Amino acid sequence: MSAPGQLTPDEARARFRAGLRVPTSGWSAGWTQANLIALPRADAYDFLLFAQRNPQPCPVLDVTEPGETSASIFAGDLRTDLPAYRVYRDGELVEELTSVTHLWRDDLVTFLVGCSFTFEAALLEAGVPVRHIEAGSNVPMYSTNRECRPAGALSGPLVVSMRPVPASQVADAVRITSRYPAVHGAPVHVGDSAALGITDLAVPDFGDPVEVRDGEIPVFWACGVTPQAAVMRSRPSFAIGHAPGHMAITDARDSTYVVP
Amino acid sequence: MSAPGQLTPDEARARFRAGLRVPTSGWSAGWTQANLIALPRADAYDFLLFAQRNPQPCPVLDVTEPGETSASIFAGDLRTDLPAYRVYRDGELVEELTSVTHLWRDDLVTFLVGCSFTFEAALLEAGVPVRHIEAGSNVPMYSTNRECRPAGALSGPLVVSMRPVPASQVADAVRITSRYPAVHGAPVHVGDSAALGITDLAVPDFGDPVEVRDGEIPVFWACGVTPQAAVMRSRPSFAIGHAPGHMAITDARDSTYVVP
Repeated sequence: MSAPGQLTPDEARARFRAGLRVPTSGWSAGWTQANLIALPRADAYDFLLFAQRNPQPCPVLDVTEPGETSASIFAGDLRTDLPAYRVYRDGELVEELTSVTHLWRDDLVTFLVGCSFTFEAALLEAGVPVRHIEAGSNVPMYSTNRECRPAGALSGPLVVSMRPVPASQVADAVRITSRYPAVHGAPVHVGDSAALGITDLAVPDFGDPVEVRDGEIPVFWACGVTPQAAVMRSRPSFAIGHAPGHMAITDARDSTYVVP
Repeated sequence: MSAPGQLTPDEARARFRAGLRVPTSGWSAGWTQANLIALPRADAYDFLLFAQRNPQPCPVLDVTEPGETSASIFAGDLRTDLPAYRVYRDGELVEELTSVTHLWRDDLVTFLVGCSFTFEAALLEAGVPVRHIEAGSNVPMYSTNRECRPAGALSGPLVVSMRPVPASQVADAVRITSRYPAVHGAPVHVGDSAALGITDLAVPDFGDPVEVRDGEIPVFWACGVTPQAAVMRSRPSFAIGHAPGHMAITDARDSTYVVP
């Protein structure tokens, strides 16, 4: 079996379709990963406007027509080819499943939203460590006290992902990730997690905790779980998201989203 | 009277509100100018999706709530503070007016879309000539044979603006404008206007013709009149646009839209 990082998007998706349930950080190196949020057409305008007003957490990479099960940058089946999904009814998380085919509806519009896993390869190449990849765990994610700009019925907090970075390499991490604005770009916050309303880094709201070592600074990037936090707050009748950290592996190349 | 380039956005808007009808290229230097398209809420999702799918001609800077008459980056009155407006019914241009207050509706959503006038100051600073400013005329704009990606009921051609650039400075023009992705960014085409389906540069579809001198190459940028071309093709029941070249002068600084 090839290492996960060497798999093509199609090969990776086939494994998830067969039932493998793992976080996708480090998978299919060089291929862009995306957050998924599917909402009824009646709620789609509010979401697209929410994304326009909050481009750092919600950089939209692709939008399907209602009911479509693939997307222009995702040739697989959106209902089965992610490792895991979360199903929301009236804002309540009701199920976590590895397939949502039986729940799919003709009016569902699927949004693929950029994911910070995309720039992790660039961080590693530059010698900036990525702790959750080293640890083989999911990235830690936190709801913050920062509000997104609301849009129609949608409001919610900014969600962030965190990577501990050695103090001497924080500037590198900023410089490198700022070249990827379509996948969250530069950090929204460096150090001082209390200022974001995060009381304990060891207890993330999504994903797994990671060790922050002496001399390392917690660095926070806007996170594509933000749409799901808005769903939980704003309670549309129905929504499907990816399980945090268990992303859509797309057919787009990371290089597509780098600015000069 | 101050020169137009020295006016604050508020001062410029007061003159247009009082009835002055001129193209805005060169006005309020350093302040971002925007295209305007206002559509009924029922058509707003299709337009926002059209913009998401065609970010180079349609970089959305701001979106109002239905019926609102100002925007987060535009403190003036959207119905009176542009030099001129175009009114469309079922896709037909029916009127050009200096105020649309009497036509405003509670369900109109206004989109402000980035404008290439924003990077003209940077071109001039770098010594790249901008012919229509020299000539005191409107920029020439052309409908092309390139199709935008459709969205719902909206489809239409890419519209471009053209600036003649000395061959030795084309690379500078590309380099400089590529730093402004939110206001159309790098050119979509350099030279060979026939390949865009433009038969005669002297006969633009919008704006005024400009002289292309020996040794100059026509350089084409995506243009925010593209939404109005989509309205003409797709025929929503009602729409208001700016008169091409007669832009909304916003309270946002050009520097907001520069990438490093």
